[in-house]
Amino acid sequence: MIPAGQAVDDSIASLKTMLKPGDVIVDGGNSNFRDSMRRGADLEKSGIHLMDSGTSGGVWGLKVGYCLMVGGSIDAYRLLEPALKTLAPENGYLHCGRVGSGHFVKMVHNGVEYAIMQAYAEGFELMHRGPFPVDLPAVSQLWENGSVVRSWLLELATLALKDDPKLEKVKPWVADSGEGRWTVHECVDYAVPAPTIAAAVFARFASRDEEGFGLRLLSALRNQFGGHAMKTEK
Amino acid sequence: MIPAGQAVDDSIASLKTMLKPGDVIVDGGNSNFRDSMRRGADLEKSGIHLMDSGTSGGVWGLKVGYCLMVGGSIDAYRLLEPALKTLAPENGYLHCGRVGSGHFVKMVHNGVEYAIMQAYAEGFELMHRGPFPVDLPAVSQLWENGSVVRSWLLELATLALKDDPKLEKVKPWVADSGEGRWTVHECVDYAVPAPTIAAAVFARFASRDEEGFGLRLLSALRNQFGGHAMKTEK
Amino acid sequence: MIPAGQAVDDSIASLKTMLKPGDVIVDGGNSNFRDSMRRGADLEKSGIHLMDSGTSGGVWGLKVGYCLMVGGSIDAYRLLEPALKTLAPENGYLHCGRVGSGHFVKMVHNGVEYAIMQAYAEGFELMHRGPFPVDLPAVSQLWENGSVVRSWLLELATLALKDDPKLEKVKPWVADSGEGRWTVHECVDYAVPAPTIAAAVFARFASRDEEGFGLRLLSALRNQFGGHAMKTEK
Amino acid sequence: MIPAGQAVDDSIASLKTMLKPGDVIVDGGNSNFRDSMRRGADLEKSGIHLMDSGTSGGVWGLKVGYCLMVGGSIDAYRLLEPALKTLAPENGYLHCGRVGSGHFVKMVHNGVEYAIMQAYAEGFELMHRGPFPVDLPAVSQLWENGSVVRSWLLELATLALKDDPKLEKVKPWVADSGEGRWTVHECVDYAVPAPTIAAAVFARFASRDEEGFGLRLLSALRNQFGGHAMKTEK
Repeated sequence: MIPAGQAVDDSIASLKTMLKPGDVIVDGGNSNFRDSMRRGADLEKSGIHLMDSGTSGGVWGLKVGYCLMVGGSIDAYRLLEPALKTLAPENGYLHCGRVGSGHFVKMVHNGVEYAIMQAYAEGFELMHRGPFPVDLPAVSQLWENGSVVRSWLLELATLALKDDPKLEKVKPWVADSGEGRWTVHECVDYAVPAPTIAAAVFARFASRDEEGFGLRLLSALRNQFGGHAMKTEK
Repeated sequence: MIPAGQAVDDSIASLKTMLKPGDVIVDGGNSNFRDSMRRGADLEKSGIHLMDSGTSGGVWGLKVGYCLMVGGSIDAYRLLEPALKTLAPENGYLHCGRVGSGHFVKMVHNGVEYAIMQAYAEGFELMHRGPFPVDLPAVSQLWENGSVVRSWLLELATLALKDDPKLEKVKPWVADSGEGRWTVHECVDYAVPAPTIAAAVFARFASRDEEGFGLRLLSALRNQFGGHAMKTEK
Repeated sequence: MIPAGQAVDDSIASLKTMLKPGDVIVDGGNSNFRDSMRRGADLEKSGIHLMDSGTSGGVWGLKVGYCLMVGGSIDAYRLLEPALKTLAPENGYLHCGRVGSGHFVKMVHNGVEYAIMQAYAEGFELMHRGPFPVDLPAVSQLWENGSVVRSWLLELATLALKDDPKLEKVKPWVADSGEGRWTVHECVDYAVPAPTIAAAVFARFASRDEEGFGLRLLSALRNQFGGHAMKTEK
Repeated sequence: MIPAGQAVDDSIASLKTMLKPGDVIVDGGNSNFRDSMRRGADLEKSGIHLMDSGTSGGVWGLKVGYCLMVGGSIDAYRLLEPALKTLAPENGYLHCGRVGSGHFVKMVHNGVEYAIMQAYAEGFELMHRGPFPVDLPAVSQLWENGSVVRSWLLELATLALKDDPKLEKVKPWVADSGEGRWTVHECVDYAVPAPTIAAAVFARFASRDEEGFGLRLLSALRNQFGGHAMKTEK
């Protein structure tokens, strides 16, 4: 398996052979900010600037512009600013600080995103299972108008629920693309309690785990002490 | 201490003496939906309708209108609709179902709100403590423009952080007003895993607990098994 | 469906017709302590004592004796003490306080039990999936001897893992019998942060939920904003 | 600041100058298992064996023996076995696998320990704050006899609670010594949901954080949207 980030290291190595001092490489992907710090320091030895540009907005960015969180030297930033201005919506880009800070802020953004998504998921699941036959797409759309929880993710929830009100077409299986994990790592290293972000990451892990070894142990333990029947594999 | 909800029961009792069949009482507060169901059934015996109207939007509602989640009979709803239309922003009110459903949907709304607030709190705390001197009001404002986590609560975070970037004026003490607790209760009763909502409620509990009995036990245990020095009260 | 506790209410009602003042009814099951308080107060009007006796030890209790947590009047306790002494192991019974306190202490016991089981489950799952081919039954047995985490539940884990080292015979499906839920309810009502107990209860909920509505919403949201492929039901 | 583990690297470097092929270095501390893997591979180039020995039992180990989790080559293990046998209680040592596996199993042990301690802390806090004046040392001792939650940590809780029933002498401030954090890191990297271990680590973080930046943001947000009074720093 290619180690995470290896492809970026390879691309930078081959770009480096074509560049001269003063040139700028922009990493607009979701690299780990610690990798970006390392790469930036390494490139700087050859006078080449790395600009790490965290990008948010998803596929909708093509229509409404991307939100850009940029790290790197002020010189590199000034050089790239016209491009940033073109890509981002109004007030939609920021020089966050030295190299690495753009991907750091983007990582935190994604960690927060995971937890917000999980928050809505819990709320809608409760309405789905609760005592009233709530019209979920209607509630989702309602909340967009004047409520405290209005957000862009809620607008997307409305679209998803209108398209498939019982979400029968989609599986309860959720990928994660790394930034959520990194955010938990950094929260642990900086001693920041992050129960909602961690919970959101763990929920995705559990959604994909078909073995459920820990759950099997729980069931086996219940059987050991309580004689509770356990469901057995056929 | 007056039991929660007693004031509403008292108000309804005194209103009831003045009303006649066909009249409608609107409870626009944050009553527990189970109380609203009980009150609605009780009033219905006298031909009086209860309409439970969950209201979201906070103090800003005066300017932009309130989002209204309404439960009750269809007759009562039709009678009140002109008023709802006046108070709410466009598409900002919904008949959620029978009596109780308005306060139920509002309760879930608040549970989700708790978890979303906690998500931002974790993310901003990580940026506050992390490796870069991030300009938090600037990041908050940036994210409003095109990012996946843009929301009204984020706009409020920007206002708060612009006013006091290090939040030095405010204490790390957070009240909770009941709906978050109720949401956890209902998630438990309907077997809905709700780790982020529960975590958000627990974080508020911990913020207000000056005694910290559980933490004292942890420290005493560490001292027992490890001889780890524990901080002692003077 | 018979409401939880109804069977106990029915039994007490029929017992009551046969009893006289001074008699004692023992509820040795896992009743909710609030029900026991209500029943005790009600029976007391007829001069009958209710003793709520929480019982721990599972099917092993037959061999090693049951741990008994008893609530009720001191008179009832004195009357029953010889029986308690016979059933419990040495120092294995306690008068916890007035009626209800026995089931309260038992409820807390079970909440703690849920969280301890979950703790082991997480640890063994990590060893199962981690970088070394760890011999889980051997580690479990090892820890019984001198380690900080030695416990009776660990001894049961050893038995379970020796019997089926990969737990292939048991399904990742875990029941819950109420006391864990009640503990979360009480923690919420008494403002006690209880993240491990709540997490343990939620993990069991998730293990049994085949629909996964919240997870479906997460996947649908990812598809909405990121164009991430989602797994679809066939 | 000296990077974590630097002292061990330094000790090994100076030991190495005195050792010859076939010699064995035992690291009996709480090193990160990834460091032990690296050190073991490095020493192996010089024919020196590293044996990583995770040790559990705390200060009580002097009396009852230490539980030892050992990693390293089978040759090194055979050489050291007489010493392990002397230090450990009966069946209290295990060759867990290749170098690093001893510290890995010890790390998991500590992660589980954190979560079990937190489980008891939550339960005792609920009894402390709940509706009955429960005699906590008596309940703790009771549970040692025949209950499902009996454990060595519970015995320590009894000692601590007997010494100071209201824990008035100890502060609600809990250190963490690294292994809990590492366990969360590894759970994240191996996609193991670990909500109780993470919650236990986060509770300790929160206990030591006097600033509470995230909580300040929550309070400021409530003030923004609800006009809720917030407690202000004087």
